[in-house]
Amino acid sequence: MNTDTICGLNAVTALFRHRPEAVERLFYTEEMKPIVGPWCHNLAAQRKPYRMLGVEEMNAAAYTTHHGGIAAVAKSRYIPILDLNAIPKHQFLLILDGIGNPHNLGAIARSAAFFGVKAMLIGEGPGHALPSDAAYRVAEGGLEMLDIYRTRALPQAIEAMRKHYRTVATAIGPDTASMTDLPHDRPIALVLGNEETGVAPDVLAVCRRRVQIVGAGKVQSLNVAQAAAVLLSHLAMT
Amino acid sequence: MNTDTICGLNAVTALFRHRPEAVERLFYTEEMKPIVGPWCHNLAAQRKPYRMLGVEEMNAAAYTTHHGGIAAVAKSRYIPILDLNAIPKHQFLLILDGIGNPHNLGAIARSAAFFGVKAMLIGEGPGHALPSDAAYRVAEGGLEMLDIYRTRALPQAIEAMRKHYRTVATAIGPDTASMTDLPHDRPIALVLGNEETGVAPDVLAVCRRRVQIVGAGKVQSLNVAQAAAVLLSHLAMT
Repeated sequence: MNTDTICGLNAVTALFRHRPEAVERLFYTEEMKPIVGPWCHNLAAQRKPYRMLGVEEMNAAAYTTHHGGIAAVAKSRYIPILDLNAIPKHQFLLILDGIGNPHNLGAIARSAAFFGVKAMLIGEGPGHALPSDAAYRVAEGGLEMLDIYRTRALPQAIEAMRKHYRTVATAIGPDTASMTDLPHDRPIALVLGNEETGVAPDVLAVCRRRVQIVGAGKVQSLNVAQAAAVLLSHLAMT
Repeated sequence: MNTDTICGLNAVTALFRHRPEAVERLFYTEEMKPIVGPWCHNLAAQRKPYRMLGVEEMNAAAYTTHHGGIAAVAKSRYIPILDLNAIPKHQFLLILDGIGNPHNLGAIARSAAFFGVKAMLIGEGPGHALPSDAAYRVAEGGLEMLDIYRTRALPQAIEAMRKHYRTVATAIGPDTASMTDLPHDRPIALVLGNEETGVAPDVLAVCRRRVQIVGAGKVQSLNVAQAAAVLLSHLAMT
């Protein structure tokens, strides 16, 4: 059984709300005692262990010092492969093409959940992060609130979703519109690219539009997690 | 002499552009050789050392593995205390009240520079980050592009700037307007608060307006670095 160790009160709260049956073990420090009662009760009923630990033991159990006093070991979530004949139809779909840093994945998921995004498609392959311990922790529950799909065929997936979505890639360069000029008359599927290299050429080629965040011109780019938040604030909540 | 070790090509490039006289030593790996010529020439003229290093030596010289192949040791920048009788007058001023994590400070500075912010005021005291190695690295040059001031008297500073600026604190809660409803007829001084506790009550009390980023309601808040980027994208570029 593959498991993730999910740390932090917000992430663990979301885990118990969305996937209570996935939790295998719960560890917490003394200051979390007033909060964990219902979760422990639930685990006890399933004969699953939970335990209060000292800080040293907690650091070891959580595999990090950034546990915020609570860590749940949970069966890894099954991320389904996107079925090109059953594209999820929302007002907004977020697509990640090569986000490699799990902290960025987590931060993007947190922002996506904040702005009401329902579903996210992750390109799969070397250098593409999928949900992991670090991503869950940074997402603070955001990953649990999103339907997540994966695909090894991002260009084909984007072609298949064109009927429902306006497909939009983030890019920089002269032939790229400002995100503020994008019309809001159709659902948007927004592609965010790799931290260093951006959206891959074969993915860019099948997107109908290219948008960028226009800045003052002194700094070339924003960090991808910040860029995601800015784009979502302008495009997702409409 | 206090020094910072500033890592990463963008941060070092900005350092040589804005504070070339502050650089004391330069270290780089072989792949940076084609780039560093003019900087080494400049350092040689001042009889300051520079050296190409192997990766192991580089990790030691940079105090981090996240050096991106280049690290400059520079005299620490002097951050002046804000003179209440000489408030800098821009279209936008960014104020940090208790940002404690140097990565957040760096990320916010990068976004601020991207959106054309000219000046930043940092509250000084325990738990308030000032520019440091990690902040410079994450800022990717953004810190060099900002005039930076510090103060131990943030409420008084905010009162002193009310004549020029509309003073605005970020907050959450029912008596808080959406950032999108803020009028743009006057320069804005925007206060961002601590990662956990937000803007301090004595600072909040002297700000004329409170704004928040309105989300979908499922997640309480954004990470402060993401919130900063969203607020700057809506408020700084006007």
